[in-house]
Amino acid sequence: MAIKVGVVGAAGYAGVELVRLLMAHPAFEVAAITSNADAGMRLADVYPSFAGMSDLVFSRHDNEALASCDAVFLAVPHTAALAAVPQLLASGVSVFDLSADYRLADPAVYEAWYGVEHTSPELLTTRVFGLPELFWDDLCAAQASHAAGEPVLVACAGCYPTATSLAAAPAVHMGWTAQAGVVVVDAISGVTGAGKSANARTHFCHADENLEAYGVCTHRHTPEIEQILEMPGRVVFTPHLAPLRRGLLSTVTMPLADDARTLTVEEMVEQYRTFYAGHPFVRVLDAGAMPQTASVAGSNACQVGLAVNQRAGVLVAVGAIDNLCKGAAGQAVQCANVVFGLDEACGLPGVALPV
Amino acid sequence: MAIKVGVVGAAGYAGVELVRLLMAHPAFEVAAITSNADAGMRLADVYPSFAGMSDLVFSRHDNEALASCDAVFLAVPHTAALAAVPQLLASGVSVFDLSADYRLADPAVYEAWYGVEHTSPELLTTRVFGLPELFWDDLCAAQASHAAGEPVLVACAGCYPTATSLAAAPAVHMGWTAQAGVVVVDAISGVTGAGKSANARTHFCHADENLEAYGVCTHRHTPEIEQILEMPGRVVFTPHLAPLRRGLLSTVTMPLADDARTLTVEEMVEQYRTFYAGHPFVRVLDAGAMPQTASVAGSNACQVGLAVNQRAGVLVAVGAIDNLCKGAAGQAVQCANVVFGLDEACGLPGVALPV
Amino acid sequence: MAIKVGVVGAAGYAGVELVRLLMAHPAFEVAAITSNADAGMRLADVYPSFAGMSDLVFSRHDNEALASCDAVFLAVPHTAALAAVPQLLASGVSVFDLSADYRLADPAVYEAWYGVEHTSPELLTTRVFGLPELFWDDLCAAQASHAAGEPVLVACAGCYPTATSLAAAPAVHMGWTAQAGVVVVDAISGVTGAGKSANARTHFCHADENLEAYGVCTHRHTPEIEQILEMPGRVVFTPHLAPLRRGLLSTVTMPLADDARTLTVEEMVEQYRTFYAGHPFVRVLDAGAMPQTASVAGSNACQVGLAVNQRAGVLVAVGAIDNLCKGAAGQAVQCANVVFGLDEACGLPGVALPV
Amino acid sequence: MAIKVGVVGAAGYAGVELVRLLMAHPAFEVAAITSNADAGMRLADVYPSFAGMSDLVFSRHDNEALASCDAVFLAVPHTAALAAVPQLLASGVSVFDLSADYRLADPAVYEAWYGVEHTSPELLTTRVFGLPELFWDDLCAAQASHAAGEPVLVACAGCYPTATSLAAAPAVHMGWTAQAGVVVVDAISGVTGAGKSANARTHFCHADENLEAYGVCTHRHTPEIEQILEMPGRVVFTPHLAPLRRGLLSTVTMPLADDARTLTVEEMVEQYRTFYAGHPFVRVLDAGAMPQTASVAGSNACQVGLAVNQRAGVLVAVGAIDNLCKGAAGQAVQCANVVFGLDEACGLPGVALPV
Repeated sequence: MAIKVGVVGAAGYAGVELVRLLMAHPAFEVAAITSNADAGMRLADVYPSFAGMSDLVFSRHDNEALASCDAVFLAVPHTAALAAVPQLLASGVSVFDLSADYRLADPAVYEAWYGVEHTSPELLTTRVFGLPELFWDDLCAAQASHAAGEPVLVACAGCYPTATSLAAAPAVHMGWTAQAGVVVVDAISGVTGAGKSANARTHFCHADENLEAYGVCTHRHTPEIEQILEMPGRVVFTPHLAPLRRGLLSTVTMPLADDARTLTVEEMVEQYRTFYAGHPFVRVLDAGAMPQTASVAGSNACQVGLAVNQRAGVLVAVGAIDNLCKGAAGQAVQCANVVFGLDEACGLPGVALPV
Repeated sequence: MAIKVGVVGAAGYAGVELVRLLMAHPAFEVAAITSNADAGMRLADVYPSFAGMSDLVFSRHDNEALASCDAVFLAVPHTAALAAVPQLLASGVSVFDLSADYRLADPAVYEAWYGVEHTSPELLTTRVFGLPELFWDDLCAAQASHAAGEPVLVACAGCYPTATSLAAAPAVHMGWTAQAGVVVVDAISGVTGAGKSANARTHFCHADENLEAYGVCTHRHTPEIEQILEMPGRVVFTPHLAPLRRGLLSTVTMPLADDARTLTVEEMVEQYRTFYAGHPFVRVLDAGAMPQTASVAGSNACQVGLAVNQRAGVLVAVGAIDNLCKGAAGQAVQCANVVFGLDEACGLPGVALPV
Repeated sequence: MAIKVGVVGAAGYAGVELVRLLMAHPAFEVAAITSNADAGMRLADVYPSFAGMSDLVFSRHDNEALASCDAVFLAVPHTAALAAVPQLLASGVSVFDLSADYRLADPAVYEAWYGVEHTSPELLTTRVFGLPELFWDDLCAAQASHAAGEPVLVACAGCYPTATSLAAAPAVHMGWTAQAGVVVVDAISGVTGAGKSANARTHFCHADENLEAYGVCTHRHTPEIEQILEMPGRVVFTPHLAPLRRGLLSTVTMPLADDARTLTVEEMVEQYRTFYAGHPFVRVLDAGAMPQTASVAGSNACQVGLAVNQRAGVLVAVGAIDNLCKGAAGQAVQCANVVFGLDEACGLPGVALPV
Repeated sequence: MAIKVGVVGAAGYAGVELVRLLMAHPAFEVAAITSNADAGMRLADVYPSFAGMSDLVFSRHDNEALASCDAVFLAVPHTAALAAVPQLLASGVSVFDLSADYRLADPAVYEAWYGVEHTSPELLTTRVFGLPELFWDDLCAAQASHAAGEPVLVACAGCYPTATSLAAAPAVHMGWTAQAGVVVVDAISGVTGAGKSANARTHFCHADENLEAYGVCTHRHTPEIEQILEMPGRVVFTPHLAPLRRGLLSTVTMPLADDARTLTVEEMVEQYRTFYAGHPFVRVLDAGAMPQTASVAGSNACQVGLAVNQRAGVLVAVGAIDNLCKGAAGQAVQCANVVFGLDEACGLPGVALPV
C-alpha cells in the first residue's frame, strides 16, 4: 500500500524537485502539495514540465490532509519549520525537514548564526541528522522507532554541508587530518541554490557570464559543516555563485597529520571506497580523476575526487552534487526510504544525463 | 524475457542518449554498445555520469553480438547506415536507424541533397518512417510484420522535422493551410544538435553568448519536412544555433486557407488535441501559452503552442522538443516500443526537470 | 566645448549603456543621470563595472539640470516619454527618445497597439525617426534645424525593427520583394532585451538553457517594422528569447518578385553594399557567410547576411546587432552625433570583443 | 610617431585580444600579426568581430617585419618563446612575453614544473616580471634601459598569478600573514582560459552547465604564485573551470599573524588602497563588498574584496579579473605603456560593460 506523503513549500525549487521525485517513486504517493503563494494554481501551470502529466493543485500550508499523511516533507525557510514540526509530530506524522531549523544540535549555535530563538530545542536531542552515508546508524534507529509507531523527525543536511562532508568525512574519520589548523572549503553553486525568488542577484543578466563569492566568512552553513566534521571554529567556508542552474562543487583543503603524509592517493581512494561501501550514491573516482557537476545533475549521486599536495602536506578533496537533488530533495527522499524500510536508493535517479 | 538490443555509434550524443534510455527501460537489455573511436573504453570513462552505474564497454562496430540482437539502433552518420542495414536485416535483426539514409522515400531526392548514391533503394518502399504520432498506422503494420517473424526497418525522423511536423501537421491534415505559398520554418537548436565533434563551431567560446543562422536555404532537413507535410518545394527552413545544450524550438508560419481564417485559436487547440488523442508525449498548450524547451529537456515530450495573426492570415505553430530525446534517441525507443508490442511510452521519461 | 547631455532613466539597461557610451565620448559630457528608483545612489554602486571610474550619482527625473542640457536621452517606458518630451523641447532641449512613444507616425496605430491615447500627436509630424542608415536625410534635416537653433526630437528605432529593417530594407527599396504576400520575421533576443526588472521570466533558472517564443502575433514592434518597410499588415513577427545577455538576430524571409529571381546572392550582396556605402556600422557579409551576434556584442555594428531559396522564390536576410547598443543606446548616440554635426561613428565602439 | 609593434601568435585568444587592444591604442601601430596555422587569412575572417574594421592579414611567425618593430608581443605556448626571444632582443626589439618561459626566476624551478630545459637562463637575471602594480620599480628601470637604447624583456604574469597576487600581496607585504602555514588559492576561470584549441574539454556541451576542478596540486601557476608572494612550498592552488567565456576569480585564504588579528576589515581596505594608490586598474572594494568577474570583463581592471574570519584567524581576499585582458593581453600592453614612457593606462579599457 502506498505511503502517503505531503510536500509543504512545494512551489519552491527544492519543493518542486521533491514533487518530481515523489511522483516517480514506486512506494510514495503524493497526497498534498502546498504553497501559500500559489495556492489554487495547478502544478503544471507553475512548472510547465508537468504539462499533461499531473493534475496536482497547490493548496495552502494549513491543508488538513497533511495531518493524515504518513510523512511530510518541509521545504520551507528556516523558522517556518520551527512553527510546523511540533504539531505534525503530535499528529503522528513523520517529518523530513529540509530547512536549517533542526540541523544544529546546540540551540545556542542556532541562535547565534540565525539570530532567532529556537522554540523547540527539546526536539534537537531526538531528531536525526539526515545525511545517510554519514549518519546511517541514526537513520536505522529512526527506522526502528518508526516501525514501533513513533513519528520521527529528520533534519536533512544542507547542500554545501552535504558535498563538503561527503568529500572530507572519511579523511577526518580515518584520522588523516591534522588536529589543528583550518580546513578551507571553497564551494561553487549553481543559481538554483539562490532559490526561486526573483531579485537582482538571480536576474539572468546578473548571474550569466559572472562569478562571485558571497557570504564570505558569514555563511550559515559554516557551523553545520563544523558540526558534521567535529571541527568547531576551524572551518573557513567561502561559497561562490557561477552561471549554471544545478550543480554544486566543494573543494576542501585539509592539512594532513604527519602519519598520513606517507599515504598515496591510490591508498586514500581505496579507503574512501571502503568507507562508502554499500552506499550506491557516493562514487569515489580513481586517483587522477576529478568530479564534474554535470555528471550528477538531476541525479542523487555524489562524486568525490582526491589529490595530495606533498609539498604543502595537504589533502584536497572535491565533492560534486546536484544541489537540488542530493543537496536537498533527493537526500530527503533517501532518508525517507531508510525510515520507511525501503532500499536507500528506491525511486531515486542514479544516472545524470550523459550530456 | 528481455529484448536484446545493440547500439551502434553509442559514443556519440544520440548514441549515448540511447544507452541512457535503454538502461532504464524495463523490457530492453543492452547487449552491445559500439564505437570504433572509443572501442575498449568503458562507457563510464567516456561519459562519467555513468560512473558506478554501468560496466558497459564499447566494442567495435563489427561486434558479432549485434547479429544476435533482437534489434539494433543505428546512431551513425549518413552513408554508414546504408552500409550496415541490409546485412542486419538479412540476419533477422530489426533496425531503428537514426541516420538520414532511409528517411527520404525518393532515392533521387536523397541523392540530390546528400550527394551520394543510395545503395539499397529497394528498402525505401518497405521501411517505416519513425515518427509515431504521425505515422502510427505504419508502425502498427511494422508491429504485425515483426510479430510474424519479419525484421523491420524504421527510419526515425530527424530532430528539426520532428518538432516542425508535430507543430504543423494537424493544421495541414485539417486542410487549414493554403494550397500555395511558402511555409516558413525558423528553428533554433541547442549545441548538442551539432554533435560531439570538437571544432571551431562547437567550442564553448564560439557558441556561448552567441546566436547564428546556419545552413540557410541548404539544410538537408528541408526535403524531409516537405515530405512529411507533403509540400514539395514550399518549405523555407532556416535553422539557428543558440547557447544551450539540449532543446529545439521550431516556429512554423503557415498561410491559412480562406475557410480557416474564421477559426479561433481555441478551436484550433481543441482540434489539435483531438488529433493527438491517445499519444501521451505531444501536449498541445492552452491558447495563449507557448512552449519552452526547458519544459521538455531530458524527456520525450513535445509541447506545441498556437497563435493566429488575423491581419496577415497566418497560423504560427511552435513546437518544442529535446533534440537528443524526442528528436533522436527517445523517438527511436518509442518506435521500438510500438514494434515490439509495448506501450508507446514504456520506459521513456515524460517529465523534464522542473527547473 | 563639450555638449552637455542628460540621461533620463539611466539605471535601466538601455540607460546605463547610454552612460557607458557617453562617458567614453569625446564630444559629449554627462551632466545628469536620473532614476527615480535609485536616486541618491552612486552609479558605481548600482553597476559595479564603474567602480573607481565614475563619481556620478543618480538624481530624480525632475532634476532641473536637464533643462539646461543641450540634449536629453530618454530611456524610459512608453507613456513616460509622452509626459516628458513637450516640456524638454519647450526648454530648448533636443530629445533623443528611446521609448516607443514617437516612433509610429500615425497616432491611431499607436493607440491601437499601445492601448493609450497619444497626448502630443502634433509632434509626430516633425519628429525624426532615428535609424540613421535608413533615414539619413531626415537626420541631416534635423541637423540643419538644430544648427538653426531649434531643438529636435528624434524617435529612435526599437531593437527588433533595427535589425530587421537593416536586413530587409535594401531588398524592399530595390523592388526585389513581391508586392503581396507576407514577410516573416523570426527574431531572437538575449535577456537584456527583457529589461532590468527581476521577475519569473528574467530569473536565471528560467532563462538559462531555455528557448521560447513570446508575444506571438501581438508584439508591439510589428507595426514599427511595417511602417519602416512600408508593408502595412504584411509582417508576421515572432520574437524569441534565448539564454544570452546581449545580442539580437533577426531572420527575415521575403517572397521575391519574379524579376528578382534571377539575381544571384553575390549581386544582391553587391547592391546591399552600395546601399550602405558610407555608413560604417552596417557590414554586409560575403555571400555564404551569416552573421553572429557575438561578433557585434558591445559594439554599434550591424552585420547582415543574405541567402536565396530558389525553389521557393524567397530571400532570407539575417541581421545581427547588440540590442542594447545598435538596438538602443548606441543608435541614439549615433543619431545625436549626426544632429550635432559630428561624425556618425564618433565615440562609438565599432569592434566587438573577438572572443 | 607611432610605435611599431608585432604580435606573434595573434590568432590565439590572448593574441587576438592584443590585436583588439593595440588597434584601439593611440600610440602603438600594429605592423604585423602572425599565426602559422592561419597565415594568409584575414583577421576578419578568423574573428568576424573585425569585419569591415581591419584589413590585417596573418603572416607566418618568421615574418621579417618583426625584426624592425619597436616591440613584439609573444602570445605563444611555453618553449616557443624560448626559441624566439634571444633573436628578437639581438635585433634590438623589446619583447613582451605572455608565455611562461621567463617568469620563473630560477631555471631549476622552470625545469621541474615544465619538464624542459631552459635554453637562455642568463636572460632570467635581467628580464622584468610584468605585473606593474607589484613590480613597478622594475618596470621603471626597464623604461630607463629602453630609453637608453637597450631592448628589454618583460615576462608578463600569468592569469591566475595576477588575480591571486593582486588580492594577496598587500597583506603579505604588510606582514599580516603568518610566517608558516599554507595559503589556499581556489580560483575559477572562464573557458577562454583553456585556449582556442577545440577539444573534449572546450566543447560547449562539456563546459556548459558544468563545474570542475582541474590540475589539482599540479598546476604550473603554483610556483609562479609562490615566487611572487615569496612563499615557497606554501601555496595550495586549485583552479576550477566554470561556464563563462571571460572572467577569473581567485579566492585566497591566508592565516593571519597574531598581530594582524586585531585589524578590522575597514582598516585593511584602507591600507590596501594606500598600497595601490596611483594604480588605476586595481580597485579595492568597500568592506562588505565582493568583486564579480562581470564587472571587469573586457577591461583591464582588477577588483579586490576582503573579509576576515575572526574565529579561524584568517583573511579571505578575493580578486577578479578578465583572464584575457588584465590576465594576459591588457597587462602586456600596460607593461609596454610603462616601458615606452606612456601613461600606465594609455589606450586600455577601464570600464566593463555594465550588463
